[in-house]
Amino acid sequence: MIRHAYGAFTALLLVLAPVAALAQSGDLIVEKKTFELPSYTTVAGETIKNVKIGWEAAGALNADKSNAILITHFYSDTSHAFGKYAPGDKAPGYWDAIIGPEMAIDTNKYYVLSSDTLVNLNAKQANVVTTGPASINPDTGRPYGMSFPVVSIKDFVRVQKALIDSLGIRKLKAVVGLSMGGLQAYEWAQSYPDSVERIVPVVATATAEPFAIAWLDIWAQPIRLDPKWNNGDYYGKESPLDGLKAALKIVSLQANGWEWARKTFGTAPAEEGKDPAKAYANDFKIDAFLDQAAVARAAFADANHFLYLCKAIQLAAVDPANIKVPAFVLYAPTDQIFAESSILETIQKIAGAGGSVESATLSGPNGHLNAITQIGQAADKITKFLAK
Amino acid sequence: MIRHAYGAFTALLLVLAPVAALAQSGDLIVEKKTFELPSYTTVAGETIKNVKIGWEAAGALNADKSNAILITHFYSDTSHAFGKYAPGDKAPGYWDAIIGPEMAIDTNKYYVLSSDTLVNLNAKQANVVTTGPASINPDTGRPYGMSFPVVSIKDFVRVQKALIDSLGIRKLKAVVGLSMGGLQAYEWAQSYPDSVERIVPVVATATAEPFAIAWLDIWAQPIRLDPKWNNGDYYGKESPLDGLKAALKIVSLQANGWEWARKTFGTAPAEEGKDPAKAYANDFKIDAFLDQAAVARAAFADANHFLYLCKAIQLAAVDPANIKVPAFVLYAPTDQIFAESSILETIQKIAGAGGSVESATLSGPNGHLNAITQIGQAADKITKFLAK
Repeated sequence: MIRHAYGAFTALLLVLAPVAALAQSGDLIVEKKTFELPSYTTVAGETIKNVKIGWEAAGALNADKSNAILITHFYSDTSHAFGKYAPGDKAPGYWDAIIGPEMAIDTNKYYVLSSDTLVNLNAKQANVVTTGPASINPDTGRPYGMSFPVVSIKDFVRVQKALIDSLGIRKLKAVVGLSMGGLQAYEWAQSYPDSVERIVPVVATATAEPFAIAWLDIWAQPIRLDPKWNNGDYYGKESPLDGLKAALKIVSLQANGWEWARKTFGTAPAEEGKDPAKAYANDFKIDAFLDQAAVARAAFADANHFLYLCKAIQLAAVDPANIKVPAFVLYAPTDQIFAESSILETIQKIAGAGGSVESATLSGPNGHLNAITQIGQAADKITKFLAK
Repeated sequence: MIRHAYGAFTALLLVLAPVAALAQSGDLIVEKKTFELPSYTTVAGETIKNVKIGWEAAGALNADKSNAILITHFYSDTSHAFGKYAPGDKAPGYWDAIIGPEMAIDTNKYYVLSSDTLVNLNAKQANVVTTGPASINPDTGRPYGMSFPVVSIKDFVRVQKALIDSLGIRKLKAVVGLSMGGLQAYEWAQSYPDSVERIVPVVATATAEPFAIAWLDIWAQPIRLDPKWNNGDYYGKESPLDGLKAALKIVSLQANGWEWARKTFGTAPAEEGKDPAKAYANDFKIDAFLDQAAVARAAFADANHFLYLCKAIQLAAVDPANIKVPAFVLYAPTDQIFAESSILETIQKIAGAGGSVESATLSGPNGHLNAITQIGQAADKITKFLAK
């Protein structure tokens, strides 16, 4: 279905959005590495042993280690924001349009790094290193399943801080991330204002809206409904693939937009000659497409990790008044996940509390996903904001 | 859980929105009646025997039968748009705020009637009369299940036309409906321009957007995932209640809005002392509330009917250029189901083809449901439009 070397989300994007939108960043080669913590205590006070996350970087760290930029990934992706793992890879990083040599986030100038989060969705992908419900609990020798402690966006950021500390970086030039990555950027500014110079949160509010909290529960619902989920205890057995596909289908749709649906599919039937008006089983093309995309996405995803990621986002709670490092907020007016009105409120609250905040919009047919397909629109603005 | 006399949706509304928003229409008493067709042939060419739908009316038909207004109901409701079945009923009609004696749609002046659609969601409700998958197929003596023919909004309207014909009404003063009821209003104008003087479609586009088509498939997904659905063959066995509740939960959320979620629930936990950050099973209040509301809604609903209604809406396809009777379109800018941009496009296309169209907005915290909770905002405008 999809090439092993592909990032899970990039594979999806190649079908969800025009390939032309994904700029290629030449032969920027990145290597996946692993960062380990013998023990990590969560915000909620639980201890996890042998925490591992993957990370990758491009560019060179300067002498005083002051040129590092951290890219924080979104819900369904990984550390693979830029470059290729090998010259032959057809898998671009999801933000190759703005990260690379002489790009908006210039790897000739900055040391750009990105890490997999805890409970990363794509736990089955070869290049992903993460710790979550699918990991082996050293105390039992079996996967944690739902006994894995609840983690939050703040936990993701704390582990990233440990990674940054391990590299001897005392202050990041910037944290840049979209969607769930944007939540992490805000959390960096709140938790470690002395360790980050500026942030670029893209298509994200500072705190989870109650409406979004409810939507995340809707996303999770199909997995819990699948009998094979078995309260999370499915490792070594059949996994809740139908529930996982259904859950991913919701994400794919809500992350996209009206214009994309209309232009790409219209009201065409899934199969020529099988009119949806004639039989219940005759689908529309858009539905069949989203089903296929969900199959591709589910191949590398773990159902429990999906649930834990929903919870982590539900718990995002940064007070905009605490954002005192300069912020450049990008948003998409047609976003169905983080509504324009909510992001504008975040911006106003930062400014209202005396914070320095700029903003710009990303237009295009893809709603929330304009943060990837249309990120080039903000390239120059990002460059200027980083150079300030 | 909820009083038997309550309309299914009204029961939900009493919890989803402030009760104060539901005006009471005194002691307007309505009687549920049944309209029967020995045989009906669908738009797709299938024949259904013994078609029955319920209907109710208020006011008196004048001598030349020129004062009739048809109210077409939305997805999850019934003909019970106004009045009470008995003086003691606590169940208001969903549009009591605008229908009744001396109300915007004045039953002292107009003969106002409303019918249950085919495949009505609330097939198990005592006062609902509908024909759909849960009905007995006269040829087999068993419920149709998924062998019931696909029906569309146009089929709903054709059966309504037969009802109107049976009453000797040659031309309706107006068709007024919200959401799925709005789709029916547009269809009336396209199919029977000589039989309706004007229409008031509320929170609806003329044709189903491809994006909405995909969302309707997301709504249906949990039912099909429930093993008890058994390809629609569950009559006389355990019904797919978990899938149905999950499906209804999506509808409840998508029909509401950001402001409602924030003001009503915020980020409160479902149970005091059970912090969602501490355990996966600790829910947020909004999620628990939506679960409870879904239980209430599912009590009267049939899962196959849910699926057939989704299909009927997916098939809605009125060309705005065909709307030649005057239209007054109401919409809610925060609507998550029928987006403002799409409704504005419908309005522009009607006007662009030379049609007569006016519009107004409904503001409030409830998104799509502002069409019920805030309908009073448009009362005077509706009165004036009907009197033209």
